Amino acid sequence: MQVAIPLYPRFTALDAVGPYTVLAFAPGWTVTFVAEQAGPVTDDRGSLNLAATASYAELDRPDVIVVPGGTGTLDVMGDEALVGWIRQAHEHTRWTTSVCTGSLLLGAAGLLDGLTATTHWALLDLLRQVGAEPVSERVVTQGKIVTAAGVSAGIDMALSLLAQAADVETAQAVQLAIEYDPHPPFQAGTPRTAPEGTPERALKLIT
Amino acid sequence: MQVAIPLYPRFTALDAVGPYTVLAFAPGWTVTFVAEQAGPVTDDRGSLNLAATASYAELDRPDVIVVPGGTGTLDVMGDEALVGWIRQAHEHTRWTTSVCTGSLLLGAAGLLDGLTATTHWALLDLLRQVGAEPVSERVVTQGKIVTAAGVSAGIDMALSLLAQAADVETAQAVQLAIEYDPHPPFQAGTPRTAPEGTPERALKLIT
Repeated sequence: MQVAIPLYPRFTALDAVGPYTVLAFAPGWTVTFVAEQAGPVTDDRGSLNLAATASYAELDRPDVIVVPGGTGTLDVMGDEALVGWIRQAHEHTRWTTSVCTGSLLLGAAGLLDGLTATTHWALLDLLRQVGAEPVSERVVTQGKIVTAAGVSAGIDMALSLLAQAADVETAQAVQLAIEYDPHPPFQAGTPRTAPEGTPERALKLIT
Repeated sequence: MQVAIPLYPRFTALDAVGPYTVLAFAPGWTVTFVAEQAGPVTDDRGSLNLAATASYAELDRPDVIVVPGGTGTLDVMGDEALVGWIRQAHEHTRWTTSVCTGSLLLGAAGLLDGLTATTHWALLDLLRQVGAEPVSERVVTQGKIVTAAGVSAGIDMALSLLAQAADVETAQAVQLAIEYDPHPPFQAGTPRTAPEGTPERALKLIT
């Protein structure tokens, strides 16, 4: 199975590397970072440079795409090299997926019209602007389109995807290989569970 | 706060990028990937190239170090450029931390003698060879040394570290910023909870 993860300026590193790690551990799966041109792409913290090793043109028919989000997402909503690649790749994919605000790029490509979808909690309402019905869930599956909530949700999404695209035993083996038995130290992972004042502090970190 | 994450051939991407993402979202924290020489370093899946932007010599007194693991760890146990840097950096750090088999490198640097520590479940016994007492816990704190279990445990470790090194409110804000409300699709994250046969399948993926 050939997976492509497009990178663009100011993507969020974990959005891309969470699903990458899950899927790249699966036997027979290869994961390639792509961009308009091969070369390093800088994340939204400004201090991580991850290399795209193929251009969009070189990898135009992947089986799976995983579109990451990031503080740079809104700036590339009109980038036809990226959005056009998503639109065309989707015609042939088995699975078209996103993490965090990556779903807004699926929407910009016209793929979410009339579908339910999710994204980072802070930007959930923006999904309406691309024709989708926002839902506050960790992972949302609509046919072959799968959208995940913010950043770390890509790990859960990729494990679910692997269970469907390969089999449950493979997904469980990868989960154990990456020792994914999470113990968050706080109940602060959603706006509903986080202590008062936390959403305001979190928003300052991501805007 | 200046954080350094050393990279070496065949590190596991999520070991490095999980803590990176947590700590790089914290206000006033900068995270730098380092290596013997600046430049791209390839992970243990062979398809991710992450750039070290500074050499060990250029960043010899970070406040925090996070040493990732990977299938390449055992090959660099005798790499004095890396292990010597860990040993010397530790003299001045506020926190010296590891993810997964990164703890074996802390041990190779002589930092774990007589301490309890953890690592990936599959290699827990190897900690004895570097003088440590292995414990099967998600995160183990011994003074300023913090070791985390396999791969994904680095996210939990970094959030705990942030709560201690900054404050609980900052850690909670970062947890919410990265929407870390994990919902693993299976109970397969530890050898104790995984279905029969899963550890054997997982071992094939990481060896």
